[in-house]
Amino acid sequence: MAVSLPAGKPLKVGVAGANGAVGKEIIGVLEKRGFPVAELKLFGSARSAGTKFQTRWGEVAIEEFNLEEARKMDVVFVSVSGDFSLEYCEKMAEGADGCVVIDNSSAFRMKEGFALCVPEINADSAKKSNKKVISNPNCTTAIGIMALWPLHQKYGLKKVLMSTYQAASGAGQEGMDELFEGAKAVTSGATKVASNKIFAHPLPFNLIPHIDVFQDNLYTKEEMKVTWECRKIMDIPNLPVSCTAVRIPTLRAHAETIVVETEKPINADEARELLRKSPGVFVYDEPANKKYPMPLNASTKYAVEVGRIRQNLVFGDNGLEFFVCGDQLLRGAALNAVLIAEALMEPVGKAFTPVL
Amino acid sequence: MAVSLPAGKPLKVGVAGANGAVGKEIIGVLEKRGFPVAELKLFGSARSAGTKFQTRWGEVAIEEFNLEEARKMDVVFVSVSGDFSLEYCEKMAEGADGCVVIDNSSAFRMKEGFALCVPEINADSAKKSNKKVISNPNCTTAIGIMALWPLHQKYGLKKVLMSTYQAASGAGQEGMDELFEGAKAVTSGATKVASNKIFAHPLPFNLIPHIDVFQDNLYTKEEMKVTWECRKIMDIPNLPVSCTAVRIPTLRAHAETIVVETEKPINADEARELLRKSPGVFVYDEPANKKYPMPLNASTKYAVEVGRIRQNLVFGDNGLEFFVCGDQLLRGAALNAVLIAEALMEPVGKAFTPVL
Repeated sequence: MAVSLPAGKPLKVGVAGANGAVGKEIIGVLEKRGFPVAELKLFGSARSAGTKFQTRWGEVAIEEFNLEEARKMDVVFVSVSGDFSLEYCEKMAEGADGCVVIDNSSAFRMKEGFALCVPEINADSAKKSNKKVISNPNCTTAIGIMALWPLHQKYGLKKVLMSTYQAASGAGQEGMDELFEGAKAVTSGATKVASNKIFAHPLPFNLIPHIDVFQDNLYTKEEMKVTWECRKIMDIPNLPVSCTAVRIPTLRAHAETIVVETEKPINADEARELLRKSPGVFVYDEPANKKYPMPLNASTKYAVEVGRIRQNLVFGDNGLEFFVCGDQLLRGAALNAVLIAEALMEPVGKAFTPVL
Repeated sequence: MAVSLPAGKPLKVGVAGANGAVGKEIIGVLEKRGFPVAELKLFGSARSAGTKFQTRWGEVAIEEFNLEEARKMDVVFVSVSGDFSLEYCEKMAEGADGCVVIDNSSAFRMKEGFALCVPEINADSAKKSNKKVISNPNCTTAIGIMALWPLHQKYGLKKVLMSTYQAASGAGQEGMDELFEGAKAVTSGATKVASNKIFAHPLPFNLIPHIDVFQDNLYTKEEMKVTWECRKIMDIPNLPVSCTAVRIPTLRAHAETIVVETEKPINADEARELLRKSPGVFVYDEPANKKYPMPLNASTKYAVEVGRIRQNLVFGDNGLEFFVCGDQLLRGAALNAVLIAEALMEPVGKAFTPVL
């Protein structure tokens, strides 16, 4: 079996979780990339049903999620919750008359036999999959791996060390609202310390080195996702990858310090040129002109900014250190999901290089 | 020659830069630690002269800096600028009638023959110095090294990789004000993007991977200070240390992800117990209870919080990963400076273990 979407004709497209931060971005990406939409269905909770969206394809009202309706689509993008995905994704995709599901949750990412796809890297894993549920990676992985993959192809990754600077949007619209309103309450003098409900602690003027739940090895699940997903997407089963994942008071772009040790000697100038030619990457690396990756530039952009590229002092000739920043809602979620659908319209073996 | 301050009698103490963020904290630390002060002189710019401080030793007005007055002190804490330090520190200390100078700038830190001191680590370097100008380390180094040193003594450091989350206070009171007022302007709706004068870019809801000037190797000077100063303070001349230094929108506590590879196998539980007994360190590491280092807890505290202690996945049995957070103005500046003065009251060879 293989998974594909018909090319050259408009498709029936569903978005489950359309009213969420990622759902809204999916609609925007479909519009901006001119995705071939014959019919757009927006699914949401009972609470959000009736909410109207003005789209390129006319006004569309959110309807409460309905499995039978979803199955009638060609493709459904799902961004609700891990529990929702576990309950519905396979049922939506089941059988010849099921739809292709592109799932933003972690529910199926690491499951044997399910594809975990960044189209610029492993489009074929989705096309050749036996399962019509294709997983989108964790946002932190999706952003960092855009730079890691070209480096791996040329130099061979031996070790990867990451430390992240993650935006509030990782916790959805509510996370962004909590940060913004909290910062407002503190700066207006209404309170000394902001309140918190979404995050484990108040985020304004603070940071929280705790995203998702702690594992037995004392890494968080968010951190382990980077390890697990990097290995699966790049198909390097035992690649040593470690990560410290930290929430900081930014709104929608994640940043990452990455240090790699490579099999072959690596040179910063060469690596910079290589990254310049790599899909989905925007090399923004002119320190003298104060140009380097930052949420201020990277937010709302499709490409992941890569900068501060330099020979790493610890690993020497085989080490590179750099800084990446990418829009968490786009490259980290909505854009990657839509690119997966685009890749599924192409034949197996065709390299996927979207013009961003 | 050796440098010392008389023990057991009150001293004439000067603070140059008394009106700055660090200067004010120095006064506070002198008060809280009951530093033996016979006379307190506060030096500042012509502009701040006349500003009155209520201190434990009565009301003191800032006077314009005057070299001859400064030389009459037993010890002067200097936190003005590198240029000021270059111009005045040696002149203040010169000759038998000069004073001891504890300098917060980077002017003398790496100069041959000058001591760079974290009293819990290398108090003797200051006591045995031929120069009466003793340097306080860079704040990022001062915070991280509190955890690195005990680990080095027991396990031997082989590699150190750091990524920082640095607060606005690193740029002084003006930096904190710019962040706070900028966040207020954005959240009140007055502007979409905050303005910036102190920082290279707007800091609210952003981060800036650029602190101090870029070097030829494309690391910033702030990053290289961590490498250079860690080597000098711990006396490990060739220790491989790399750092990415990032300004984030927090107010006064710096945080750092640190990964170390050690000569001897290291165990997270053992390392945690070791750190628990280490001076200047507060192990705050109960993930299940959401306790880990954060600016929210670490600000205004003397001890550096260390948490998220775990076996590092990349270096395995010889690797440890952890997260530290310390008050940039205190451990990173004012506290360390006052502790140096306290150490100078003790004989050479006496281990310095302040009760924090």
